[in-house]
Amino acid sequence: MRGGAAPLAPLHYEALVRRELAVDLGSAGEVTSDAIVPAHRRAAARIAVRRAGRVCGLRCALFAFETLGPVRHAVEHEDGADVPAGAVLATVEGPARVLLSAERAALNLLAHLSGVATATRDVVEAAARGGPARVVCTRKTTPGLRALEKYAVRVGGAANHRFGLHDAVLVKDNHRLVAGGVAAAVARARAATGHLVRVEVEVDDLAQLREALDAGADAVLLDNFTIADLRKAAAMARGRALTEASGGITPETVAAVAATGVDLISVGWITHSAPALDVGLDFDAS
Amino acid sequence: MRGGAAPLAPLHYEALVRRELAVDLGSAGEVTSDAIVPAHRRAAARIAVRRAGRVCGLRCALFAFETLGPVRHAVEHEDGADVPAGAVLATVEGPARVLLSAERAALNLLAHLSGVATATRDVVEAAARGGPARVVCTRKTTPGLRALEKYAVRVGGAANHRFGLHDAVLVKDNHRLVAGGVAAAVARARAATGHLVRVEVEVDDLAQLREALDAGADAVLLDNFTIADLRKAAAMARGRALTEASGGITPETVAAVAATGVDLISVGWITHSAPALDVGLDFDAS
Amino acid sequence: MRGGAAPLAPLHYEALVRRELAVDLGSAGEVTSDAIVPAHRRAAARIAVRRAGRVCGLRCALFAFETLGPVRHAVEHEDGADVPAGAVLATVEGPARVLLSAERAALNLLAHLSGVATATRDVVEAAARGGPARVVCTRKTTPGLRALEKYAVRVGGAANHRFGLHDAVLVKDNHRLVAGGVAAAVARARAATGHLVRVEVEVDDLAQLREALDAGADAVLLDNFTIADLRKAAAMARGRALTEASGGITPETVAAVAATGVDLISVGWITHSAPALDVGLDFDAS
Amino acid sequence: MRGGAAPLAPLHYEALVRRELAVDLGSAGEVTSDAIVPAHRRAAARIAVRRAGRVCGLRCALFAFETLGPVRHAVEHEDGADVPAGAVLATVEGPARVLLSAERAALNLLAHLSGVATATRDVVEAAARGGPARVVCTRKTTPGLRALEKYAVRVGGAANHRFGLHDAVLVKDNHRLVAGGVAAAVARARAATGHLVRVEVEVDDLAQLREALDAGADAVLLDNFTIADLRKAAAMARGRALTEASGGITPETVAAVAATGVDLISVGWITHSAPALDVGLDFDAS
Amino acid sequence: MRGGAAPLAPLHYEALVRRELAVDLGSAGEVTSDAIVPAHRRAAARIAVRRAGRVCGLRCALFAFETLGPVRHAVEHEDGADVPAGAVLATVEGPARVLLSAERAALNLLAHLSGVATATRDVVEAAARGGPARVVCTRKTTPGLRALEKYAVRVGGAANHRFGLHDAVLVKDNHRLVAGGVAAAVARARAATGHLVRVEVEVDDLAQLREALDAGADAVLLDNFTIADLRKAAAMARGRALTEASGGITPETVAAVAATGVDLISVGWITHSAPALDVGLDFDAS
Amino acid sequence: MRGGAAPLAPLHYEALVRRELAVDLGSAGEVTSDAIVPAHRRAAARIAVRRAGRVCGLRCALFAFETLGPVRHAVEHEDGADVPAGAVLATVEGPARVLLSAERAALNLLAHLSGVATATRDVVEAAARGGPARVVCTRKTTPGLRALEKYAVRVGGAANHRFGLHDAVLVKDNHRLVAGGVAAAVARARAATGHLVRVEVEVDDLAQLREALDAGADAVLLDNFTIADLRKAAAMARGRALTEASGGITPETVAAVAATGVDLISVGWITHSAPALDVGLDFDAS
Repeated sequence: MRGGAAPLAPLHYEALVRRELAVDLGSAGEVTSDAIVPAHRRAAARIAVRRAGRVCGLRCALFAFETLGPVRHAVEHEDGADVPAGAVLATVEGPARVLLSAERAALNLLAHLSGVATATRDVVEAAARGGPARVVCTRKTTPGLRALEKYAVRVGGAANHRFGLHDAVLVKDNHRLVAGGVAAAVARARAATGHLVRVEVEVDDLAQLREALDAGADAVLLDNFTIADLRKAAAMARGRALTEASGGITPETVAAVAATGVDLISVGWITHSAPALDVGLDFDAS
Repeated sequence: MRGGAAPLAPLHYEALVRRELAVDLGSAGEVTSDAIVPAHRRAAARIAVRRAGRVCGLRCALFAFETLGPVRHAVEHEDGADVPAGAVLATVEGPARVLLSAERAALNLLAHLSGVATATRDVVEAAARGGPARVVCTRKTTPGLRALEKYAVRVGGAANHRFGLHDAVLVKDNHRLVAGGVAAAVARARAATGHLVRVEVEVDDLAQLREALDAGADAVLLDNFTIADLRKAAAMARGRALTEASGGITPETVAAVAATGVDLISVGWITHSAPALDVGLDFDAS
Repeated sequence: MRGGAAPLAPLHYEALVRRELAVDLGSAGEVTSDAIVPAHRRAAARIAVRRAGRVCGLRCALFAFETLGPVRHAVEHEDGADVPAGAVLATVEGPARVLLSAERAALNLLAHLSGVATATRDVVEAAARGGPARVVCTRKTTPGLRALEKYAVRVGGAANHRFGLHDAVLVKDNHRLVAGGVAAAVARARAATGHLVRVEVEVDDLAQLREALDAGADAVLLDNFTIADLRKAAAMARGRALTEASGGITPETVAAVAATGVDLISVGWITHSAPALDVGLDFDAS
Repeated sequence: MRGGAAPLAPLHYEALVRRELAVDLGSAGEVTSDAIVPAHRRAAARIAVRRAGRVCGLRCALFAFETLGPVRHAVEHEDGADVPAGAVLATVEGPARVLLSAERAALNLLAHLSGVATATRDVVEAAARGGPARVVCTRKTTPGLRALEKYAVRVGGAANHRFGLHDAVLVKDNHRLVAGGVAAAVARARAATGHLVRVEVEVDDLAQLREALDAGADAVLLDNFTIADLRKAAAMARGRALTEASGGITPETVAAVAATGVDLISVGWITHSAPALDVGLDFDAS
Repeated sequence: MRGGAAPLAPLHYEALVRRELAVDLGSAGEVTSDAIVPAHRRAAARIAVRRAGRVCGLRCALFAFETLGPVRHAVEHEDGADVPAGAVLATVEGPARVLLSAERAALNLLAHLSGVATATRDVVEAAARGGPARVVCTRKTTPGLRALEKYAVRVGGAANHRFGLHDAVLVKDNHRLVAGGVAAAVARARAATGHLVRVEVEVDDLAQLREALDAGADAVLLDNFTIADLRKAAAMARGRALTEASGGITPETVAAVAATGVDLISVGWITHSAPALDVGLDFDAS
Repeated sequence: MRGGAAPLAPLHYEALVRRELAVDLGSAGEVTSDAIVPAHRRAAARIAVRRAGRVCGLRCALFAFETLGPVRHAVEHEDGADVPAGAVLATVEGPARVLLSAERAALNLLAHLSGVATATRDVVEAAARGGPARVVCTRKTTPGLRALEKYAVRVGGAANHRFGLHDAVLVKDNHRLVAGGVAAAVARARAATGHLVRVEVEVDDLAQLREALDAGADAVLLDNFTIADLRKAAAMARGRALTEASGGITPETVAAVAATGVDLISVGWITHSAPALDVGLDFDAS
């Protein structure tokens, strides 16, 4: 797969898809199909993209159809594929009512995740034009979709920052304030957390950066630094800690940031503000 | 409240917020605060917007804090308020660890819903410059957030289209194909559904529109019509059925659409592609 | 199927059946079978009705058996069939312990839903002797069974009134009181709800009926009207709004009500008070 | 309390009530109230019975209101009270929207459980006219309501038979068939189950009864015995095992059954077919 | 099966296994395998015990693998088998990532339940050297594992005491204190509970024992009696009530307790303190 | 608190406690109390330890009581306290039925977690006699209790190893086998996982250790090394990677292991095989 992302375990999306279908069907079900489409009628349809992008969430979408009835499918483009407008990702065949009832739940998930993957890919490619820095996501994900959007980021070719509050220490301004300085904060974090937990410290300027490096941080988050300061910071930290540029970075500015020599560039909008990729379900004329 | 939206019942977001917090905390919890912040330390913070927009989801955000511990809050701007960049929406006070642990879950929800409300408001205002048509949303919502995004649309000043497959009949191309024509489809829908269920029919051109009107549809969805055809359609349907313009309508084009005299304009991107509103949590210096 | 009801999606009953089995099995399981019946013993049994009625819930019942183990079944009479006392609806074959463990959960659901469908059928047939009015159910359903009982009503040949508070406006006495009159209530409802939402108004006498008609209600619920007044109301409303007779209507009185010319007759007891249909599981002698 | 029933723990009904409210509110909420009733409007209402009966489920009903908002209540008649038509069970006061939104969920539960309690009381009183036999319920309960209906039976003055497959051995025809006779079945059950588990055996005639008594059954279920045979059976079993009459017993026949000297009379219809008690919510004129 | 235990229904462990896998995988999944093991790589592995013991929970363990992907298995030793150190219980074959991802969840469950079964077997065998008393477990089970540990006790050859507060009356000191004596307590319990519910009374000395016997208790729990007093108690109660010895009984003392003639010996540590059986997953060299 | 452990968020145990109470109460509830104890009777009781140990889980236990009714409590010894046999941890006061109904669920959780914390404390203290190595737990936790047992380990004074498959890379034998050597495995892990994810490698001998160090592992798990080899390994790895001794380490051997100079000692039995701490609930004489 493009982006090196391992497929997602169904355990990560089954409950979400079932809830989404339950909300769409309510207590009355797909009243239009139930009224109009004979129960025995079968249909075949193509899942297609209306615009070019990177595919993500196809198996989740297929699971929506499978949840409502016995359908068969054939996959043309798996997650990670870059496809042109009009490309058919998969075909599904089964009871017409099942296809019509699951269509929206399936497409909404596919469109959302492909939107994240596509936006990620675009910023990764833009960054590559500036330097080898790795693009990473943040915890600014859409409510309810943390695991899925983190996966879409991997499919888009970027790396994941921490998945939650639980799997790494990130000392932010407010933590630092309370702890009485960076050195104390890093020391306490080292003492209280497991040996596999890394410690990153957010810094606002070069003075704070020096303090964080001296405290032994594994990584430093350079918040809203100028390009010039990013360059100085990257030089200062090299060999001592990983440097992560953060704060309002866009596809337009990312190459310049990458050129500063920082190790990582975190971008929040690829998860919280990426537009959905336009996808549709085209029924075969029967 | 602006937009005339009634407040959302907590039943609609409690489970979502609890799941979101559980995902963020994992099995280890907020390891940074637990390591660095003393248990007895209290803090106060302001929920503020970084950019101007319409507020939505404030009570959901406050619920995230309340779920993790005893906090007090004071609300400055409720859902529906239009606020400038920098505005403080509410202040929260309580154990510092609670504020730090719930921060991201709270902000992600508030940012997402305010993003939807703001985008909706913008398109509603743009439409109003063209005519009195009502802006409505679609079922193209973010997975897991149907009820909340529909609410954000109301807060944004637009109206809700149907909430799911269950609460209205919408005869789309594929249904029509299977049913053997619009007249048959409408007749079957009337016979099989309740007396409070309305029937809308999607049409692709004026000939189909005529057929739908003759079949007695309550509303017609004019899919991808030109401005000229929308004007003809609105004239044809006036007094017989509601007309809904649909398909690729943007803030730039919506006024022209509204000027055609259609009754409704449906816009998918306000739910599936609205960027999040930038919100933050500012701790008071202690 | 009789009654024109589309089959119910498994998503609508799977969780209920699993919970019901879990309650029946507790932590100890089917202690009688576990003690007495060898694990390898297989059995076959017939699901049969003890009294005549209309079948409803057969697939839910079969799902109960399937949940506990690998069983095979053959269906004789699907939902919607009118069967005489003694009729075999289906046969099931599998591990004896599975059949014995799922029996009660399966039968309770089948008996309850068939009871609703049978009572509905009876009142629909009685109504038909008086006139063409359509029988509809109410929201007075058994707790936990809204979607299933609404389905049973369709299987029984009647139509569904709204499914919940969410899918239609029904202005009742108390709403009206608060809103300051029918006209204001209808106007506010039109302004605040979607274009596919119909508005029905409950009225207590002919004066209120006139007010509701003038306000443009889509339908009027005539609460506890006399037969004479129902006739007047039906004449008044014809061509302006649908009329629904409601309040204490029984199989004995329904034909007279239907003869008044009302469009709809709502009956609560078919869901909240219908007696269960007697069904049993007869094991084959082995 | 009448009937000697201990109050039900909220843990037994909270999830059910929340699910019921969620189904009624859907994603759109109480659209009528939201449109018509101002958010700040308060109201008071009385929960009243339309017909005489025994109250059951009042606390569950109040919990429905409490789930949707801050309400105050005053209870007039607790579960177990016998009340005349028109009696006010409790008053509730709070936001008008909350009262209107929770009304149906609250009343459906109260009406259903009071229906079970009332039917139970009636058959218990009828049985008492024939003799001291104890009336018991069965596992033929409404799907999803096992614990609540068992409670309503206690409130109605009868006793509970086993709660599920898990808490007692009941050797039925089919078990017996597979086990190769009553003696073997009872012996195996004794060997395989805990020392606090009793063993009851279903018998079809006096010969089987003798066999069950000889096998040491703790109780015998006399299935569809004539009155004459019940009398013989009660005499035979006295001092050796409890006798339970079962099969088609009605309020009309129960006294005669009780007069035969059996210890227990099981009645299925009090749970699966009892009509709901008519209850309503009357708003105070404001 | 050894111990006469019927297999556990999957309904009893499916949700637990899914939750356990979800916790282990978090939002990121098995990051090691996803990084290192190719998606297409298949593997085969043997589930083996490192020490001798009695197998319990094998099907639960296999279900963990099946939940994450398509695996095949071959079982060598089912639950209830006594196996030597090194014995292979089953082999599993499938995608390497699936085997690696489910390994720990599968083994933890198998190790825990086999630990309980093995400890139970040991105490049952020790007791048998003293006399025919039946070993029973208590409600002192590990949180979340009541049904599974009760099953493991049966697999270990002991019997289950009650499964919860709900399926039998056990009058303990505190109940007795409140009720005003044993006789009153037993009488109230008989009056208020079903005819299939047995009544056991905890007693602290021979005087209390006499009182409990006179009150007609079905069983008496002899709490912390000396061996001499147990012998007297067993003699006193014989033919009147079952006697259960309880309180700090170990494998070393159990034979002496059994030799006193009591009917039952309850042992809490087999569920709350049994060490896990050491089990592992050995991959085949590929 | 002793052990430096931050309190556990209620979100981590609320669902578990509710499930445990639901299982214990079943559909019938606490039948003994309901029969014997008057509803209005209040009681007070002391939660006390029968043996010396370290307290853990007290707030979870108190939550069990609070879930069933309005109780008041006073805490004497919080989690982390080392208490002698007989110490009272807290007193609870409320309805007698509530105390009796929640007792077992409360105590089982407290006993289990205190057992883990006590066992952990003992091994930590033993290790300290050998050297400064840090004791860590494993993923061999009791099914369903991962987060709670990890917390108990912290309360016991040890550190947590990773919480799941998701929060750190641990390359075990089987991964290595598939990846074609340690160097390749470490390289792939670095490339595919986030910058805050550390990489640990399990090695079986000194040759493999050298390979892991050369590959740049952050930590090495020395599996079943002799004391002599542990000493060599610690020397080799010093300054290059953290060393973790693992495999069959007991309180008796842990000091010798700590004396070898390794950084970490992982012990599985503190979570999977620690005996419960004996705790009880003593009612005040009323």
